[in-house]
Amino acid sequence: MQREANVVVLGGGSWGTTVASICARRGPTLQWVRSEDTARDINESHRNAKYLGDEVELAHSLRATNDFREAAECADVIVMGVPSHGFRGVLTELAAYLRPWVPVVSLVKGLEQGTNYRMSQIVNEILPGHPAGILAGPNIAREVAEGYAAAAVLAMPDQSLAANLAQLFRTKRFRTYTTDDVIGVEMAGALKNVYAIAVGMGYSLGIGENTRAMVMARAVAEMSKLGVAMGGNRDTFAGLAGMGDLIVTCTSQRSRNRHVGEQLGQGKTIEEIIAAMNQVAEGVKAASVIMEFADKYGISMPIAREVDGVVNHGSTVEQAYRGLVAEKPGHEVHGSGF
Amino acid sequence: MQREANVVVLGGGSWGTTVASICARRGPTLQWVRSEDTARDINESHRNAKYLGDEVELAHSLRATNDFREAAECADVIVMGVPSHGFRGVLTELAAYLRPWVPVVSLVKGLEQGTNYRMSQIVNEILPGHPAGILAGPNIAREVAEGYAAAAVLAMPDQSLAANLAQLFRTKRFRTYTTDDVIGVEMAGALKNVYAIAVGMGYSLGIGENTRAMVMARAVAEMSKLGVAMGGNRDTFAGLAGMGDLIVTCTSQRSRNRHVGEQLGQGKTIEEIIAAMNQVAEGVKAASVIMEFADKYGISMPIAREVDGVVNHGSTVEQAYRGLVAEKPGHEVHGSGF
Repeated sequence: MQREANVVVLGGGSWGTTVASICARRGPTLQWVRSEDTARDINESHRNAKYLGDEVELAHSLRATNDFREAAECADVIVMGVPSHGFRGVLTELAAYLRPWVPVVSLVKGLEQGTNYRMSQIVNEILPGHPAGILAGPNIAREVAEGYAAAAVLAMPDQSLAANLAQLFRTKRFRTYTTDDVIGVEMAGALKNVYAIAVGMGYSLGIGENTRAMVMARAVAEMSKLGVAMGGNRDTFAGLAGMGDLIVTCTSQRSRNRHVGEQLGQGKTIEEIIAAMNQVAEGVKAASVIMEFADKYGISMPIAREVDGVVNHGSTVEQAYRGLVAEKPGHEVHGSGF
Repeated sequence: MQREANVVVLGGGSWGTTVASICARRGPTLQWVRSEDTARDINESHRNAKYLGDEVELAHSLRATNDFREAAECADVIVMGVPSHGFRGVLTELAAYLRPWVPVVSLVKGLEQGTNYRMSQIVNEILPGHPAGILAGPNIAREVAEGYAAAAVLAMPDQSLAANLAQLFRTKRFRTYTTDDVIGVEMAGALKNVYAIAVGMGYSLGIGENTRAMVMARAVAEMSKLGVAMGGNRDTFAGLAGMGDLIVTCTSQRSRNRHVGEQLGQGKTIEEIIAAMNQVAEGVKAASVIMEFADKYGISMPIAREVDGVVNHGSTVEQAYRGLVAEKPGHEVHGSGF
């Protein structure tokens, strides 16, 4: 029998904590958090009240620490639950302590500002030799933490490692599938927020259920085109991290990106909307980044273009939808337009 | 300039009428309906009150007739809006009058009972030489008729014919894309109802938004596997007729198949549920048909299997969901299980 792997989760947010609790049900798991209060809450009350409320009880075997070095040194698997803007910094600190070959699994659905790197690219840069992957899917943290059934996909370049690691992220109610398409899963996660804004804008216009499904289906087609050009697999965009996450993000009342779209439709400026939110809506930043990618790969991405127009260039939601409908429908898969 | 094509729509239901009205905005369109009242309503009031209510106004240029022979003889394009159980009969009657090579576009999302034929296969059998296709997508008839934006995909084996025909089914608010994947679009239409029952069953169990998205993403994966084995294209199942229609069918309150699933979850028998509905829920019949296909092609289809268990073999909704969750998640695309 093999020694159990020590899972170390870095970050104390809602999803990092939820994943840490899932892992702790399977085996030894240590969560590093910055806040002393949060560490105490996890260790003593088995709660992360700040992010998951009072009612969600975490695995009693989950242990939290503020000691970064302790966490880094004992890790056999690193799970990165820190936001994209802190990702590189934490990895750089980690490099001093981490044993060789320890796999790094990102939970982050976004790109690094400035470089437009996917998180696994940052891992490859800062921690060469460490297999880098991502766990993503339709996972509203609160619901998973409350025990509703959910699924995610773990993408690692090496399928045998993925199959092995996936066991650490599985419970009776959390289903972790595997894939080797790291690029596809990371890009699906980064892109889908922009499309959630598009659907949110549609809600404010009173679009019908057909219209919403149309925008979502065409969003998957549009994401796939860019993802494939970047080296991803089409099937990923039709899977849990693509279509699955898009469905949740577009239909959930709790979705920040959908909320941004709805507020834009009510005539608010993006500055007003951001000022009124206490969390970041990743899709706002991603909209202009997608347009850079679209240029670079020579791909027409009309939905993203219209969202970017509203978010960054003073266009209105009505103009955005008119812009889309003006495009002639072509071949469903090979056509270049909306 | 070419002579305009006479479009003839056969059938007086909600979707046939809606499509007839779309075509009539583009050019000459004749709708054949069995009921004299419906024909009069369309011709005199520009309404089909029986199926679309009093408020939906049809194109004034749409003309309806009860004279089957008149309709058949003048047709340059046939649009089949009759239900699957009457499809073969109408085609057989049509054969006596229809000019050669006239394309036949089906609006039917189901298979023929007994033979399990797709509608285009029936066309190929009864009307050899006539190109057969299907128009499908997330199209709640009432919403399209009311003018909400929507999209569909027109599948014909010949892409140049598809591109040409698609122009007949386009308005500013109805976007018709094209594809050559007739098998995929027909199978997506026939299969998705079974998955809507699965999601409906989930609603009755109080599943979360993550869970619903998981079932839908896995449903698309499961449909794709069978569809590809039958000769369809994976991309079709991630498109309008697959994922798009599934989203509408699973989320709309008006969906009959979702309703069946919810009622099953409340402990009603399938006989009670069917007796209380005045319309057919195609997914009920399709569940056992899918299992025949799964056997024939040697494919594991766990979601369909559990729906079939509840609908046809006395299993409960709780058992169905337990059966799914008991399967170990594998590779997202190549895995054989749920």
